[in-house]
Amino acid sequence: MSFVNLDHISANPLLPEVRRAMIAAIEHGYHNPSSQHRLGEEAAAALENARGEVAQLIHAEDPREIVFTSGGTESVNHAIKGVALANADRGRHIVTTNIEHNAVIRSLRRLKSQGFTVTSLSVDETGRVDPQAVAAAITPETILVSVMHANNETGTLQPIAEIAALCRERRVLFHTDAVDSVGVVPFDVREIGADLVSFAANAFYGPPGVGGLYVRRGVKIFPLLDGGVQEHNKRAGTENLIGILGMGAAAALARRDLPARMAHLSRLKEQFLRGLAESIDEVIVNTHPVHSLPHLVSASIRYVEGESVMLMLDDEGFGVSTRSACATGSLRASHVLLSLGLSHADAQGTILVSFGVENTAEEVHRFLGALAKVVATLRGISPLCRKSAS
Amino acid sequence: MSFVNLDHISANPLLPEVRRAMIAAIEHGYHNPSSQHRLGEEAAAALENARGEVAQLIHAEDPREIVFTSGGTESVNHAIKGVALANADRGRHIVTTNIEHNAVIRSLRRLKSQGFTVTSLSVDETGRVDPQAVAAAITPETILVSVMHANNETGTLQPIAEIAALCRERRVLFHTDAVDSVGVVPFDVREIGADLVSFAANAFYGPPGVGGLYVRRGVKIFPLLDGGVQEHNKRAGTENLIGILGMGAAAALARRDLPARMAHLSRLKEQFLRGLAESIDEVIVNTHPVHSLPHLVSASIRYVEGESVMLMLDDEGFGVSTRSACATGSLRASHVLLSLGLSHADAQGTILVSFGVENTAEEVHRFLGALAKVVATLRGISPLCRKSAS
Repeated sequence: MSFVNLDHISANPLLPEVRRAMIAAIEHGYHNPSSQHRLGEEAAAALENARGEVAQLIHAEDPREIVFTSGGTESVNHAIKGVALANADRGRHIVTTNIEHNAVIRSLRRLKSQGFTVTSLSVDETGRVDPQAVAAAITPETILVSVMHANNETGTLQPIAEIAALCRERRVLFHTDAVDSVGVVPFDVREIGADLVSFAANAFYGPPGVGGLYVRRGVKIFPLLDGGVQEHNKRAGTENLIGILGMGAAAALARRDLPARMAHLSRLKEQFLRGLAESIDEVIVNTHPVHSLPHLVSASIRYVEGESVMLMLDDEGFGVSTRSACATGSLRASHVLLSLGLSHADAQGTILVSFGVENTAEEVHRFLGALAKVVATLRGISPLCRKSAS
Repeated sequence: MSFVNLDHISANPLLPEVRRAMIAAIEHGYHNPSSQHRLGEEAAAALENARGEVAQLIHAEDPREIVFTSGGTESVNHAIKGVALANADRGRHIVTTNIEHNAVIRSLRRLKSQGFTVTSLSVDETGRVDPQAVAAAITPETILVSVMHANNETGTLQPIAEIAALCRERRVLFHTDAVDSVGVVPFDVREIGADLVSFAANAFYGPPGVGGLYVRRGVKIFPLLDGGVQEHNKRAGTENLIGILGMGAAAALARRDLPARMAHLSRLKEQFLRGLAESIDEVIVNTHPVHSLPHLVSASIRYVEGESVMLMLDDEGFGVSTRSACATGSLRASHVLLSLGLSHADAQGTILVSFGVENTAEEVHRFLGALAKVVATLRGISPLCRKSAS
């Protein structure tokens, strides 16, 4: 029996058209886009075509506002450190939230060791930030606000357009880590009004290790990678052209297929949430019922250990995640789940189920059966469960 | 007639085996190596296999000393900024040379704006650094010496083993930018004794936009990309696994084929140098006659403009470079050539010819004819040439 990927938040498969675009790029054998002879010009044209596709996906005014990166983490590091260091003469205070990805948290921690101060805001019990709290946290020293769009552990969407507007009024730059939302839900950077947006190709079935940073024209930012003049002088280094052409192809497909994908994924999510409620008791759903990604559910199943659930589901032929794949290796309970007000014990029982375009209702049905079985087995041997039942 | 790439310093073609490895990776559809279910484990195994191949190429003791990056530029930025910031409590002085790549120069410039001081050493008229000059430049405040291995504009190799030994005696970390030499000439990191080595896959016919940083065990360094715990906690971000698997395949081939490649390339280089001396007068060869890469020749052709030579050769079906491809966009004369003592005028007449494994003696023969014709034409209309002849 084939293994079913229900861990799309960690990795989406490449769509057939993306594979074909990358294989064509490999077989074509592009030269260096910076070379001035005809081979270089041809490579540069391919690069700029991909940039145009990506710009259209997020409705950027000018393709030159797109910087290709090695993925979401580089985009976030570039945005936060690049803006902080370039604007330190205006102030050294940054506002963020308690539920950001480690790329944001650790970039900010690095800046703190260099004399910046950071205000990190709580979210309410539904996992959302209050835009007024952001406004209240801004001081005359504030140079940047960074609030993620979709949380990678709960799928909950933040009110970034409101936050962006508040920042604009106060002349503070606004960055959003939209790594798990661009290409997954509609994203119009001009409508939102963000100054910087981090995103990644794999979220929309492009290759892993390729991403983008939107930098609104006029934003003062230093490169994270210093060296040559690639990427309109914003990011040095010979381009990963094969990956970038894959990202361009994926962006074009995402633009075309977004409504159909969202409809399909939402149906699977609804089916799973309904089935979960019917088949397992004492479950806390951490994903916002309305403001959330169409394909991800975070559920804390009481009296079990998420790690054990994941491993037993693996044996049953299903891949799920227990926390951000990027945080694997850490044994602490997820900071995101604790921020929601979950207890340590409940946080440890959390699984992340994330669907992809290739998943089917039949797979979700089978998965619900496997999950109920696994949870029943684990609860049968759980001292926590026995204690609670006594 | 097909176009002949004589600009391999800007881009090497992917070898058939590398293409096949990357296409296989694309078609296989790997999951995220950080995921803990079986799909993640399979991806992690493929990643670690590639790391082993790369470690063997440079004779690293432990594969965990290899950090995969998005290319030579990221490796250099990571090495220099990561070591400087992690060791700033011990001192804030760095020693380098006047002929480094812009990735080194501009990383150091960034550090200078953060309070570090840099001593940049001259090279002799053959383009080599004197190890004793490095030793003399080291102060009690010095935390890092960064000297490139092969210069990307002349191909001249630096005495890095001697420099590494001097640094080790003085307990100063030594980084070498070996982006244009690893996989091109033998490179044994333990024999050389470097603490940090930057390199890139495309130098040995792997994909562009993929590189490595060797960090000797025990070296104190901060990540450049903060976030998740990938790459043994040295470089956050989901891996470009397709590119990394291409790099692994390219590393294995380079290890096997290095002697044959070097013999072939040296023959082409000799043929070109001989033919150049016979067919064009008033040429300065900037490449060291002995200590240099086997495939690159920098020649300053007096009374012509390198840009014009390059463009006319393009029409004749040959791609060459006039300066580092990474520096395209800058109109200033190359800092490397000026460091050799060339005049501005002579530096402007410089072309870089770099051969690849697929080039043939017949192509070099045709190229020599085309170059002589182009130079004769340009000199015929050159005011500089007329003045000199008058």
